[in-house]
Amino acid sequence: MFEEKNHKFTPLSELGEFGLIDHLSSLLKAERPDTIQSIGDDAAIIDHQGFETLITKDLLIEGVHFDFFYTPLKHLGYKVIAVNVSDIAAMGGEPTHVVAGIAVSARSSVEAIEEIYTGMQMACSHYGIDLIGGDTTTTTKGMVISITALGRVHKSEAVLRSTARPSDLIVLTGDIGGAYCGLLVLEREKEVYKVNPYVQPDLSAYDYVIRRLLRPQARIDALRELKSLGIKPTSMIDVSDGLSSELLHLVTKSGIGARIYESKLPIDQQTFKVCEEMKINATTAALNGGEDYELLFTMPLSHYEKIKNHPDFTVIGHMTEANLPAILVTHLNEEIPIVAQGWNSFNNSKQSAQ
Amino acid sequence: MFEEKNHKFTPLSELGEFGLIDHLSSLLKAERPDTIQSIGDDAAIIDHQGFETLITKDLLIEGVHFDFFYTPLKHLGYKVIAVNVSDIAAMGGEPTHVVAGIAVSARSSVEAIEEIYTGMQMACSHYGIDLIGGDTTTTTKGMVISITALGRVHKSEAVLRSTARPSDLIVLTGDIGGAYCGLLVLEREKEVYKVNPYVQPDLSAYDYVIRRLLRPQARIDALRELKSLGIKPTSMIDVSDGLSSELLHLVTKSGIGARIYESKLPIDQQTFKVCEEMKINATTAALNGGEDYELLFTMPLSHYEKIKNHPDFTVIGHMTEANLPAILVTHLNEEIPIVAQGWNSFNNSKQSAQ
Repeated sequence: MFEEKNHKFTPLSELGEFGLIDHLSSLLKAERPDTIQSIGDDAAIIDHQGFETLITKDLLIEGVHFDFFYTPLKHLGYKVIAVNVSDIAAMGGEPTHVVAGIAVSARSSVEAIEEIYTGMQMACSHYGIDLIGGDTTTTTKGMVISITALGRVHKSEAVLRSTARPSDLIVLTGDIGGAYCGLLVLEREKEVYKVNPYVQPDLSAYDYVIRRLLRPQARIDALRELKSLGIKPTSMIDVSDGLSSELLHLVTKSGIGARIYESKLPIDQQTFKVCEEMKINATTAALNGGEDYELLFTMPLSHYEKIKNHPDFTVIGHMTEANLPAILVTHLNEEIPIVAQGWNSFNNSKQSAQ
Repeated sequence: MFEEKNHKFTPLSELGEFGLIDHLSSLLKAERPDTIQSIGDDAAIIDHQGFETLITKDLLIEGVHFDFFYTPLKHLGYKVIAVNVSDIAAMGGEPTHVVAGIAVSARSSVEAIEEIYTGMQMACSHYGIDLIGGDTTTTTKGMVISITALGRVHKSEAVLRSTARPSDLIVLTGDIGGAYCGLLVLEREKEVYKVNPYVQPDLSAYDYVIRRLLRPQARIDALRELKSLGIKPTSMIDVSDGLSSELLHLVTKSGIGARIYESKLPIDQQTFKVCEEMKINATTAALNGGEDYELLFTMPLSHYEKIKNHPDFTVIGHMTEANLPAILVTHLNEEIPIVAQGWNSFNNSKQSAQ
C-alpha cells in the first residue's frame, strides 16, 4: 500500500556479497572519534576510554515484527535503529555505535536493501552514532534484521530496572497507546485494500498515531532534559511491550509495589479518537499497546517540583512498599491489579515491529 | 539423522517470552570481572578499562547456514559462538562477551532452545567469555540465530587486514579443506537416508572432517602461541569463506600481491582420502572449501626461524610488490591467478554454517 515505488532493480547476485558490502559501506559515514575501525575487517573497533560499554540486541522477523504492506523500507531502517537506541537510553546511556545484520531472499533487489540502509543512516545521523559493521546474507523466505546497539555511560552511572525505591514517583515521557492505535488503523486499511485495491485511503486524520508506529523516536532528548533539571532516575525502562509489562519489570526487579492512576495516563487526543472509532478502551491501549518507546522511570519524590508542570513528563503514580502489589486506581477509584498483557511473541499473534 | 533424542517437550507458549528468558538465564553463568550487568535489563554493561573494544556480528539462517538433519543442537550452539570468537581472534583480540538472538517457530520446544544455549554456554566456558544478553522471538518458518561477539585489545594493537607488507611470509594455522569434506560426507549420507531411512551409517572413518564442520574451534590458542614466540602478525583474517577468498581480502586491503605454493598447503590425510573418494581435487577443497576457521596471517620474514618447524604453523608463501597479482604456484610449477570461489550467499547454493 505505502510501498515506495522503485523502478530500478539490481539483482543481488549481480553485486555478490562482498560487492554489496562495499556498496552499502559507501552509504554509511563513520564520524565519531571513538570509532577506531569501521566496516571492512573481521571486527570493528571502538574505544570507550574509561566509560562502561552498554550492549543491546534485537532480532526482527518479517511477518512477525514488521509487515511490508504498510512499512516503507526507509522507515523500517530508521525504526530498527531507533528502538535499539531506545534500549540504550533506558539505561541512561549515550548511544554510540550499531552493527546491523540483514538477511534477505536472494530474489531481493540491491535497491531495497539500500533503502533500509539509508533509513538506518538517517537514524544514525540523528542520534550521532556510527554504523560500524554487520552481516548480509540470504534467507529461504522473508527478511530478517538483527541490530546490536552499543552505548556508553560513566562508571556506575547506568540506570537499572532493579533500583526503584518505595515512595519514588513513577514518571512517563510523552504519551502512550498511540503506536498501537496506528497499528489498528493500518491493519484495517490492509483489509480494505484486500477487498478493493483501487481505493486510495485518506489517512490524514491518523497521521500522529501512524507516525508513532512507523517512525518512533528514542527519547534521548528527554534524558538530556532530565539531566539539565538535575534529576537522576532511580530506575528506568523503555515502553516497548506496553506500560503494564514494563511497570511490572520495575516492580519485580526492584522487589517493591506500585500504584498508578488511570486519570494520570498521558494519552493523545488522536489516540482517544481512534480508540472510540475502534470501540476499544483507551486505557487498555495505553496499558497493553506497546511500541511507543517512551521512557518509564522512577525518581525521588523530592524532585516533584522540578517536573510537575513539564509538558513532556507525566507523574502517573508512585512506588509502594515491598509487600504491596502493582495496582491501577481507576476513574471509579477501583483498585485493579496490573497484569502484563503486552507483546508475547510465543503465544500472541499481535503484530508488532519490536 | 544425528538429532539428539529428547523426549521432554515443553511448548514455548507454556513459558512465554519472559519465562523463557529467565529459564535460559539460569543456564548461563556470567563470571568475568568486566561484566558489570548481564541479562535482565534493557542493555548489558561491560567495562573494558582502557582497552579498545572489538565487535563482530553474524546472522545464521536455517536452511542457508545450517541443516538440522545432521547438526546436533548443542553443536550448533557451540559453533555459532566459536565462529564469532574466531573473528575476534582474527583481529588479534581477546574475546570477552557475546549477545545472542534466537528466533524460532512458535511450535519449537523449550528443550530444543535449551540444547542450543547449553552448547553456547560450553563454548563460552571454553573461551572464557560471558553471554550477557540477547533476544528471543518467533519466526514464521525455520530458525534464525544472530550472534554479536565483543573482545578487547590493547590500544592500537588490533591486527587489521590492510597492513601486510611485501616480502612478509604468509602463514596458516592448522589445516584446511577438512570442513568442506565433512559437509560433502554428511550431504551424501543425507541422500542415502532419504532413500533408506533404516540404514545406520558408519561414519567413524570420517570423524575428523565431520568434527571440522560441526565443531570448529577459534584459534585463540594459536594467538597465544604466537605471542609466546614473540611474533606479532602484520595482517590477519580467519578462514571462513575459503583460503582464496581470504587471501584476496589481505591482498586487496593491503594493496600488494601474493604468491602461495600448492605444495605447501596444509591438508589432513583424511581430507585427502575424502577428496579421492568424492573425486574432487584436494587443492580445490583447500582453496575454496571454507569453514575451517583457521587463521591466515602475514609476518615479517625475519621471524621465519621461530616457526619453521612448528607443527601448528605452515608458511604457504609470501606477499609481493604492489603491482603483482595473487598467484598460486602449482605442483607443476604453473602460475595460476587466485580468484575467490568461496561462499557467496547471494549466488551460490553451497551449504555453509557461517
